[in-house]
Amino acid sequence: MSEEAFQDSYPDDVAHCYGCGRLNEHGLHIRSFWDGDETVCRLRPRPYHTAVPGYVYGGLIASLIDCHGTGSAAAAAYRHEGRPPGSEPALRFLTASLRVDYLRPTPLDVTLEARGRIVEVSERKVVVSIRVFADGTETARGEVVAVRAPDDFLKSLKRAR
Amino acid sequence: MSEEAFQDSYPDDVAHCYGCGRLNEHGLHIRSFWDGDETVCRLRPRPYHTAVPGYVYGGLIASLIDCHGTGSAAAAAYRHEGRPPGSEPALRFLTASLRVDYLRPTPLDVTLEARGRIVEVSERKVVVSIRVFADGTETARGEVVAVRAPDDFLKSLKRAR
Repeated sequence: MSEEAFQDSYPDDVAHCYGCGRLNEHGLHIRSFWDGDETVCRLRPRPYHTAVPGYVYGGLIASLIDCHGTGSAAAAAYRHEGRPPGSEPALRFLTASLRVDYLRPTPLDVTLEARGRIVEVSERKVVVSIRVFADGTETARGEVVAVRAPDDFLKSLKRAR
Repeated sequence: MSEEAFQDSYPDDVAHCYGCGRLNEHGLHIRSFWDGDETVCRLRPRPYHTAVPGYVYGGLIASLIDCHGTGSAAAAAYRHEGRPPGSEPALRFLTASLRVDYLRPTPLDVTLEARGRIVEVSERKVVVSIRVFADGTETARGEVVAVRAPDDFLKSLKRAR
């Protein structure tokens, strides 16, 4: 497994995501890595991330799938172009659609592992299929359709800072 | 619009949800109401709920759709049975699947409104279609398939407390 997370290479302008931005001090700090051809991230829910007592809030699982999906999309796009993550021009992806199937209740007191598989890569769009495991048991499954953030949108963020 | 939120009538055992539980002191406290045949809830994102600067984190929108969906499902099931919300036996719904389409970036500095439409109600399952608006502009659209929590699952929560 590589040492630097995908999210570590995001430019500062786009590193404030509540889910995965290293510059969001209130956020979840989701970090994703390659593991062979799959992507992986681990997240320990906080005690208050409850759905019903003892089980993880579905919105947190959706957030995990969302951020691991867009991070995996960016990493896959760089790999597809044969460029190192973070190299210019920056490739940053936004979620166009998110789907989560909750297979069974997810226990709260373990570290979750999300594993991503790149289903499709094109210049404008990456599709990532993600499975979430708690203690080795698959509890949720999702898909993220991520689209490349337009350059003028990214430029408008730089100007706004 | 009625005064009591759907979530206000949840029994204490199932009122700890991070998204909508009135007993979760760290949570978002999402509250949903009838507005005619539609359901509505409003949520003001916190300043740190960012995706990229100035825009709302997709995971928060997914959370809003999730909790408004399960809340709407419970309310629709009570209405379908002609019973007041919170009456016994308790009807509590869990998310089986969640889908969100992000139509455009959602600005961070306004109160969001989610409006739900009950698509299907049966004894075991309710489907809710939800649109999210920021300042009157639809920015996301979602669907929640909610299934009734089995009685033995709810009983196991009571025993665990």
